[in-house]
Amino acid sequence: MGFQHREEHVDEGMLLVQANIDDMNPELCSYVGDLLFEAGANDVYWVPIIMKKGRPGIMLNVLVGDCELSSIEEVIFRETTTIGLRYMRAVCHRLARQFESVATPWGEINVKVGYHRGDMVQFAPEFKDCEQAAKQHGVPLKRVYDEVRRLFLSRIS
Amino acid sequence: MGFQHREEHVDEGMLLVQANIDDMNPELCSYVGDLLFEAGANDVYWVPIIMKKGRPGIMLNVLVGDCELSSIEEVIFRETTTIGLRYMRAVCHRLARQFESVATPWGEINVKVGYHRGDMVQFAPEFKDCEQAAKQHGVPLKRVYDEVRRLFLSRIS
Amino acid sequence: MGFQHREEHVDEGMLLVQANIDDMNPELCSYVGDLLFEAGANDVYWVPIIMKKGRPGIMLNVLVGDCELSSIEEVIFRETTTIGLRYMRAVCHRLARQFESVATPWGEINVKVGYHRGDMVQFAPEFKDCEQAAKQHGVPLKRVYDEVRRLFLSRIS
Amino acid sequence: MGFQHREEHVDEGMLLVQANIDDMNPELCSYVGDLLFEAGANDVYWVPIIMKKGRPGIMLNVLVGDCELSSIEEVIFRETTTIGLRYMRAVCHRLARQFESVATPWGEINVKVGYHRGDMVQFAPEFKDCEQAAKQHGVPLKRVYDEVRRLFLSRIS
Amino acid sequence: MGFQHREEHVDEGMLLVQANIDDMNPELCSYVGDLLFEAGANDVYWVPIIMKKGRPGIMLNVLVGDCELSSIEEVIFRETTTIGLRYMRAVCHRLARQFESVATPWGEINVKVGYHRGDMVQFAPEFKDCEQAAKQHGVPLKRVYDEVRRLFLSRIS
Amino acid sequence: MGFQHREEHVDEGMLLVQANIDDMNPELCSYVGDLLFEAGANDVYWVPIIMKKGRPGIMLNVLVGDCELSSIEEVIFRETTTIGLRYMRAVCHRLARQFESVATPWGEINVKVGYHRGDMVQFAPEFKDCEQAAKQHGVPLKRVYDEVRRLFLSRIS
Repeated sequence: MGFQHREEHVDEGMLLVQANIDDMNPELCSYVGDLLFEAGANDVYWVPIIMKKGRPGIMLNVLVGDCELSSIEEVIFRETTTIGLRYMRAVCHRLARQFESVATPWGEINVKVGYHRGDMVQFAPEFKDCEQAAKQHGVPLKRVYDEVRRLFLSRIS
Repeated sequence: MGFQHREEHVDEGMLLVQANIDDMNPELCSYVGDLLFEAGANDVYWVPIIMKKGRPGIMLNVLVGDCELSSIEEVIFRETTTIGLRYMRAVCHRLARQFESVATPWGEINVKVGYHRGDMVQFAPEFKDCEQAAKQHGVPLKRVYDEVRRLFLSRIS
Repeated sequence: MGFQHREEHVDEGMLLVQANIDDMNPELCSYVGDLLFEAGANDVYWVPIIMKKGRPGIMLNVLVGDCELSSIEEVIFRETTTIGLRYMRAVCHRLARQFESVATPWGEINVKVGYHRGDMVQFAPEFKDCEQAAKQHGVPLKRVYDEVRRLFLSRIS
Repeated sequence: MGFQHREEHVDEGMLLVQANIDDMNPELCSYVGDLLFEAGANDVYWVPIIMKKGRPGIMLNVLVGDCELSSIEEVIFRETTTIGLRYMRAVCHRLARQFESVATPWGEINVKVGYHRGDMVQFAPEFKDCEQAAKQHGVPLKRVYDEVRRLFLSRIS
Repeated sequence: MGFQHREEHVDEGMLLVQANIDDMNPELCSYVGDLLFEAGANDVYWVPIIMKKGRPGIMLNVLVGDCELSSIEEVIFRETTTIGLRYMRAVCHRLARQFESVATPWGEINVKVGYHRGDMVQFAPEFKDCEQAAKQHGVPLKRVYDEVRRLFLSRIS
Repeated sequence: MGFQHREEHVDEGMLLVQANIDDMNPELCSYVGDLLFEAGANDVYWVPIIMKKGRPGIMLNVLVGDCELSSIEEVIFRETTTIGLRYMRAVCHRLARQFESVATPWGEINVKVGYHRGDMVQFAPEFKDCEQAAKQHGVPLKRVYDEVRRLFLSRIS
């Protein structure tokens, strides 16, 4: 049915980069996240933390391959207010992924399917596709999700 | 035994003042908290929240009596970066409180005791006293707490 | 199909009771929650907060009807370590609810359906039913959820 | 200098609408937020909470005027998975606001200025303007912010 | 007095497995946690995070020995919605533990005692025992805890 | 201009020590943090988490050099209630730092400046200096920050 197959794999050359930030305007976070993805980050997320002297802070987390470390550091130092960061070795295990298309009353919508050892274990309607359909047709986004899931499940069962 | 008694009471003239803050250096929080207590706040606390565009923010909460509202607003507008705040009517129910003193190997330590309808329902060693004893005598703070609680309980049982 | 209908309604006699807790063993939370539901709470939830002197605390929230306030206060003062609490007037708007049963490969499972102004806007497989089916038949819980949702949607569409 | 003046005012007809959500795909949050703003919300934010049975949930908060309540409820029931919501009366105090323009090496950038009782107490470079300048000219966003603040302050001092 | 002694030890063969989840019904968390413990996890906990596009998400954390990794991965992929996970090498240092029994007015209650280099540094009444005593005898759970701690401390001092 | 220069460097001998705590009075956190810094911690922060059985807990994080591990463990076991901890190898990348002094209407205030590959990427007014100036002269702390930043930027541009 679908294609764009990518094999399940274990990547041993990953790093989890972290920086604790307590003196940055949080408005900048989303912008910084975008730049980090552009610079090669595999994932970016933020954790609310409590820092020295009880200050509410945020910990930036970036998952990145060995080779992109220096680009990522460049972005972190240039765009956030931290004067230090740390990283730890990490191994990433990623499922095989495949996109399949489902015909809905609101057009074709992609479903990302995940395989573990050959078995389908995940399927998730693409957010962007669903959001666009919901906006265009004025239906609740959750209804689009539900219907895509129903149609996908009906096809494979 | 103790004194400084304050009756259990219900205070209907309280306000819960809130301000969502997404563009302030979080280093300022503790300082702002101190000023709010000086200006008459009964309590001050911060809640990590997620704001517009997914920004990590902090919500300032101040519990305050009707009469202090304007001083509190003054501090919030002068010292934080918010351009608006909101408040809701709140009723506070506070237990009767009494301080009692317990003799420990590290000196006298106060215990704050709370009474609901005449029954003792709470007792808490005073943090400042315990902290000072722990520092001065080089014992773990948790051990001081435990011993104060044990001595207090043994006396009343 | 189903029954146990309860009308959509607006309840003006509700209170949101809150207590900030910074000196209680968090192990107690789930037990306290159970007692609060027994004492008549409509809902109980906890919010991580940052309190005076930067202490990580938890704010207990209880949604309760006017008439149960005093039972709820009793539980809070007897079972937690707070020496004060506050409450605010709240209006609750609850959808009409109805339970419908869906026949699945793992037995009958209930779905809670919510109606707003006569239109079905929500439907949620009952967690307890799904959990039991998943355990008994050794299937992933998420697969049970998905299948119940699919069957329910197929029936009504 | 500037215009678009809006007077400092206290709005007594506001409501804080809340819904606890423990069974919704969090991907939907930003979309729901956008719809709520379109439906008249003054502010929308999310609070991470711990719900019944220790479930990690999110509490939706919407600040809204009396008159928009029913549109807001419509969006919440249609687009989220909650089967109930609550609201509390709130009073909003908003500063007078004025936009002023600052000439920077990267073009004109607006600054939102807030006045309390006639005194300037806040000023904040507009995020969108700064973000666009940073992207277009390839300079760190924080540097744009800093420079706009410096120029604005130099002008008024 | 007690037995069931386990020596203080340092375990170098541990892994911290993490998965960021932004599209799962949080109702599933406790069930997933139970399955992970059954599959050999040493610890399971969840961290509220902010993910791509400002989505509120939860990060699943599992502490597990090298040998159980593949069973843990199986559970994560089968029962959650993630299409990837990561892990990092971790060293665990665990105290010697011993259970001792304390006779209370509400029956025998176990206390878990922790030793570091031969010194008792921790003691904690067993939650399950205390909870059962509190329920059975209708006393506040915190009072059971306090009394167990008092009796244990009185015995050893 | 300034001095106290410390070179940008990458430190490979760091450890991130973590302990999950669900049965400690959170009042102790700040005291424990102080002791950890005294024992050689490079950084200490707390993360709100959800533990087994849905308990709200806090995860202690300590960043520390190899050589201080045992002192840090000593403090954690003696002062908190955990019976185990874990640590992971971490690499720390710290910017070159230099303190420069800025003359303000409220006295000299230090600015910590950070350099990445020779370029200035960070500058932050010292919190303690600003706080003292704000207190002594009765000006808003944020205004002190803003003015220090403005003066520093004007000097270098």
